[in-house]
Amino acid sequence: MRIGFIGLGNMGAPMAHNLLKAGHELTVFDVNERAVIALGEAGAQPAASPQDAVQTCDLVITMLPAAAHVRTVYLGEQGVLTGIRPGVLLIDSSTIDPQTAREVAAAAAEQGLSMADAPVSGGTGGAQAGTLTFMVGASAELFDRIQPVLACMGKNIVHCGELGTGQIAKICNNLLLGISMIGVAEAMALGDALGIDTKILAGIINTSTGRCWSSDTYNPWPGIIETAPSARGYTGGFGADLMLKDLGLATEAAKQARQPVLLGALAQQLYQSMSQRGDGGKDFSGIVNLYRKPEV
Amino acid sequence: MRIGFIGLGNMGAPMAHNLLKAGHELTVFDVNERAVIALGEAGAQPAASPQDAVQTCDLVITMLPAAAHVRTVYLGEQGVLTGIRPGVLLIDSSTIDPQTAREVAAAAAEQGLSMADAPVSGGTGGAQAGTLTFMVGASAELFDRIQPVLACMGKNIVHCGELGTGQIAKICNNLLLGISMIGVAEAMALGDALGIDTKILAGIINTSTGRCWSSDTYNPWPGIIETAPSARGYTGGFGADLMLKDLGLATEAAKQARQPVLLGALAQQLYQSMSQRGDGGKDFSGIVNLYRKPEV
Amino acid sequence: MRIGFIGLGNMGAPMAHNLLKAGHELTVFDVNERAVIALGEAGAQPAASPQDAVQTCDLVITMLPAAAHVRTVYLGEQGVLTGIRPGVLLIDSSTIDPQTAREVAAAAAEQGLSMADAPVSGGTGGAQAGTLTFMVGASAELFDRIQPVLACMGKNIVHCGELGTGQIAKICNNLLLGISMIGVAEAMALGDALGIDTKILAGIINTSTGRCWSSDTYNPWPGIIETAPSARGYTGGFGADLMLKDLGLATEAAKQARQPVLLGALAQQLYQSMSQRGDGGKDFSGIVNLYRKPEV
Amino acid sequence: MRIGFIGLGNMGAPMAHNLLKAGHELTVFDVNERAVIALGEAGAQPAASPQDAVQTCDLVITMLPAAAHVRTVYLGEQGVLTGIRPGVLLIDSSTIDPQTAREVAAAAAEQGLSMADAPVSGGTGGAQAGTLTFMVGASAELFDRIQPVLACMGKNIVHCGELGTGQIAKICNNLLLGISMIGVAEAMALGDALGIDTKILAGIINTSTGRCWSSDTYNPWPGIIETAPSARGYTGGFGADLMLKDLGLATEAAKQARQPVLLGALAQQLYQSMSQRGDGGKDFSGIVNLYRKPEV
Repeated sequence: MRIGFIGLGNMGAPMAHNLLKAGHELTVFDVNERAVIALGEAGAQPAASPQDAVQTCDLVITMLPAAAHVRTVYLGEQGVLTGIRPGVLLIDSSTIDPQTAREVAAAAAEQGLSMADAPVSGGTGGAQAGTLTFMVGASAELFDRIQPVLACMGKNIVHCGELGTGQIAKICNNLLLGISMIGVAEAMALGDALGIDTKILAGIINTSTGRCWSSDTYNPWPGIIETAPSARGYTGGFGADLMLKDLGLATEAAKQARQPVLLGALAQQLYQSMSQRGDGGKDFSGIVNLYRKPEV
Repeated sequence: MRIGFIGLGNMGAPMAHNLLKAGHELTVFDVNERAVIALGEAGAQPAASPQDAVQTCDLVITMLPAAAHVRTVYLGEQGVLTGIRPGVLLIDSSTIDPQTAREVAAAAAEQGLSMADAPVSGGTGGAQAGTLTFMVGASAELFDRIQPVLACMGKNIVHCGELGTGQIAKICNNLLLGISMIGVAEAMALGDALGIDTKILAGIINTSTGRCWSSDTYNPWPGIIETAPSARGYTGGFGADLMLKDLGLATEAAKQARQPVLLGALAQQLYQSMSQRGDGGKDFSGIVNLYRKPEV
Repeated sequence: MRIGFIGLGNMGAPMAHNLLKAGHELTVFDVNERAVIALGEAGAQPAASPQDAVQTCDLVITMLPAAAHVRTVYLGEQGVLTGIRPGVLLIDSSTIDPQTAREVAAAAAEQGLSMADAPVSGGTGGAQAGTLTFMVGASAELFDRIQPVLACMGKNIVHCGELGTGQIAKICNNLLLGISMIGVAEAMALGDALGIDTKILAGIINTSTGRCWSSDTYNPWPGIIETAPSARGYTGGFGADLMLKDLGLATEAAKQARQPVLLGALAQQLYQSMSQRGDGGKDFSGIVNLYRKPEV
Repeated sequence: MRIGFIGLGNMGAPMAHNLLKAGHELTVFDVNERAVIALGEAGAQPAASPQDAVQTCDLVITMLPAAAHVRTVYLGEQGVLTGIRPGVLLIDSSTIDPQTAREVAAAAAEQGLSMADAPVSGGTGGAQAGTLTFMVGASAELFDRIQPVLACMGKNIVHCGELGTGQIAKICNNLLLGISMIGVAEAMALGDALGIDTKILAGIINTSTGRCWSSDTYNPWPGIIETAPSARGYTGGFGADLMLKDLGLATEAAKQARQPVLLGALAQQLYQSMSQRGDGGKDFSGIVNLYRKPEV
C-alpha cells in the first residue's frame, strides 16, 4: 500500500521503519527535517507538508504528541484534509482525548472519509520490535481493512468498538496503571518500614490478591525485578511526564462526563509532585521515592 | 498431635474440622458454647477456658477476631500462658497488628515458649476446602515444625521471615488489594461513562499493564466475571467491613512507622463511606457503586 | 463614558444595569436576543455583534461563561478586535484560565490596545446590589483608569498585579474555598456522629483555629446559620457546578505549572460526585450530604 | 482549693504554676522527678504517686500525653481511683479519644465520683500566659463548680455538653485546622507558581471567601505574617507530630463511628510525609514545603 505517515518522533520513526520493512511505500512528513531525511535514507519519500504527504496515498497514519498537533495536521491550512483523495483511510495513533478524536473524524466524514483512532501501548521498545498493542476505535468494516497494516507494527491489534473507543480503552487502562503503581509503591514501602524482606513481600503479593503488572513485571522497589527500570535508577521505561499526560486525559474526560475518579486524581497529583522535583523524565515507577525516607 | 484450638468462628470452625479429618486430637474452646458443642460432636474435646484447652496439648492454634481478643486469650487470667507446659508451640492465625503479635510472643518467650504469627487469606471458602494461604512469621526452625500442621488447613504455606512478618505480609497485600479494587472500579466506571463496552474494556485491561487480580479474577463490574460477587449482587466474598479492618491495621501500622500511605488512607475512607451507607456486609468490590450514577 | 458591554447573563445583565444607573452610555450585545432587548428597554443601545457593540465606545467590558467564548468574542470573525478604534480600554470580567487571558491580551496588544482581566466574586446578589469584588490584573496606569468604572458595579476593587493576576487570585481563593467547605463538612458531620451538639461545635470552631468563612458565614450544616443555603435546602448560592468550573481552572493551571494540589484535586472529585448524583445545580455547601448517613 | 495535679510537662507545669499563683494549694506528681522538684520549689507539695497526690485534695487535674497514660494514672495500681475520697472532682485536660474519656469516667462513676474532660488549645504560650481555651465536657452542675478553677489557667472556658464532648470539640476543630492549613499551603504555592505576589494573594484571600485562621493569622508562606512560625523557619508553634496525634484521634474516632473523613485522612498522611522527612518537630505550617520546588 501507499501510506502517508506523519509524525516521526521516538514512536513514529520506528513504526514507519517497520512499515517499510513490510514492503509498503511510504511518503513521510515531520516538522523536524532531520527525522524526514533519516526516513528518506531508509527508502521513504519525503514530503514538505501533511497535505503533500497524503496526496497520492491509500492510507494515512499519524503519530503525534497531543491533540493540538492532531488538529493542526488534519484541519490546518496545509493539513491532511486539504489535499486528500476520496476513499483514503485515516488512522490516528496519537494518544489524545476521545472528543478531539471524534471531532477530527467528523470533519473527515464530511469529506466522505473513514477514520480510526488507534493509540498504542508498548513504548519505544515495542515500536522498534514491532510488538505494539493497538487499541482501535473504528467501524467493523474499517477495522478489517486496517488490521493487516497495523499488524506490521504490532502483535496485538484489538478492536475496542466504534470511533473514540481506542482512546477510551487506553486512558482507562493507564488510569488504573497509574493507581496500581502507587498502590504497589505504598505496599512495598510500608513492608520495608515494618521490617519484612521486600523480595519475600513481592513474592507473596505476586501469588496473592495484590497481584498486578506493576508488582510482578515492573516492581518499583529496587532489586526485585532485574529487567524493570527500578533496577537501573528509573531510567528508560515510561516517563512520569508521559503518565501525567495520560492521567490528564483521563481526569479531563472524567470531568466532561461528571464521573468522579478520586484515586486517579490523587495519583495525578503525586506524579505532578515527582515532576515538580525534576524527575518527570524518570520512569513513572520512581514514584516510590516519594515514599522513602530521604537518606541523610 | 494434640492440638489446643481456640476461636471457632466462621474461619476457625472449618479449620478445626480439617485438623480433625487429618487425624489430630483437638481440645477446643470458644466463648460461644454452641460452637464448642458442634466441634465436640465432630470428635473434639470441649474445654471450659483457654487455660483448660491447652493443658495437655503439644501445639496451640488461635483464630480470633482482633488484637484485644488475642491479648485476653493469651495473657488473661485463665489465658493460654497460665496453664501451659514447657515446649508447647504457639500459632496465632488471627489478623492483628504486628506490634501486638510481637508483644504476646515476647510474653510467651519469657516462659520459654516459641510462637508464630500465621494469618491467612482465602476466606471461609478456603477454610472449608482446606486451601488457605498461611503467611507465617517464625524462626526457620519453628516454621519447619508447624508447616505440616498448617498444611492440613491450607495449600500454600509461606515463610515470610521472623515473628510479625506474617502480619506484615498480610496487611501490605491487603492494602494493595483495597487500592487496586478501587482503581479497577474507577477505570471501569469511567470507561462505561465514556461509552466503551465494559467487557471489551476488561479484556484489554486484563492483557495489558492494568492487569490485576481485582480485574481479571474479581472484577467489580457486573457481568464481567460470572464467579465474582459482582455477578450476584455483591453477596458472599470478602465483606467491606473486613477490608476496613485490614486497612485500619495497615494505616495504624503506617502511623506507628511514620510511613505515609496516601492512596491507602483514601481507600479506607471510601470503604468507610460504603459501610456508612449500610453496605459493610456486602463484598468489598461493591465499592464500584460509589462511582455509578444512581438510578432514578 | 461610552461602554461596549458584551455578555448579558445572570451576572452581566445586572452589572450593565448598574453602569446605566451610574450614567454611562451603553451599547450591548449577547447571543441571546431577549437579553439585548431587555437592556435596550432600560436605555442601552442594542448591537448585532461584538464588532458592532464596540465601534464607537471608549471602553469594552465582557462577561462570558468560559474561555472559548472569550476567544470567539475578541478574536472571532465579527469579534471585538476587528472593529475597534485605537485607545479603547478592554476589561474581561469572565472567569477563565490565566493563559487564555494573556493570549487574548497579547492579540489586543498587537493592535496597541490595553487589556485587564477583572473576574468577580459576590455572585448574582452582589451583581444586582453593585457590591461585587473585582480582582484586577492590569498595569498600574490601566488600573487607575478603569477603577472608577468598576466601582459602579462593585465595592471592592483590588489591584492584583499585572495582567492575568486577577484570574490567578480568583482561582487560588476558590481552590481554598472548595477545600475549606469540605473540611467544615467533615468536621461537622464527624462531630454530629460522635454526639456533640452541632450548634455548640460550630460556636467553638468559629472562635478557634478552625475558624473560616465556610464555617462562620456559610456553614453547610442545616440550622447553624439562618441566611446560608444550608438553611433552605441548598438552593440559591453558588452552585456546585460553578465550583467545579473554578476547581477545574485551578487544577488545569496547576498542571501547566507542574504544581501539585492534592486536596484541591480530591475536592474537585467530590464535587464531581455531587454533580453526578444530579445535585450540580445545588449550592456547593450541599457537599455535606456526601457525609451524612442516608435516611431510610 | 486543695488540688492534686498530675502531669507536669510543657503544658502541665505552667498550668500548675498559674494555679499556685491564684492561691490554690497543690500536691503534684509526675514520673519525671525533676519536674516535681521544680514545682515543689514554687510552693507545691510533692507526691510519690498519683494515689499519693490525691489523698487529701478536693479536686484532681491531669494533663498527660496520651490515652494510655490516662488509663494508668486513673486506673493503675497506685492510680487516682485507688486512694481518693468521696466527693472529689476529677478533670482530665489531656487530649485523648472520647471513648477512653468515657471509660475512665465510668470507672470513676462507679465510686460515685464526677469527672470532666477538658482538653485545651492555645499551646505552651497560652499555658504560660494563662490564656488557654478549655473545651469542657461535663454535666451542667459539674461545669459550674470547676469553671472558676479552669479560669485560673485559661480565659475561654467553653461548656461543650456532656462528658466526652470536650474531646469531640477539640478533635473536630483540629481536623478542620489540619485540612485548612494544607488548603492555604496549596493556594499560596499555586499562586506563587502562577506568578502573583503572595502578599497580595494573602490579602485577597483574607478579605474573601477563602478567609481562615490558617491564612489570616498563621499563614504558612514566609513573609506574610511576622508573628507566625513561617517567619522564623517553622520553629516554635504547634509541631507537626502534635497535629499528627490529633488527626490520628480524629480518624480513629471516625473509624469507630463509620464516618468518612476523606480530606482529613489525606491531610494526616501528608503530615506523616513531613514527619518521615524528619520535620515532625517543626510547626505544622511547614507542610507548605511539600508544595515548593526544592532549591538546587
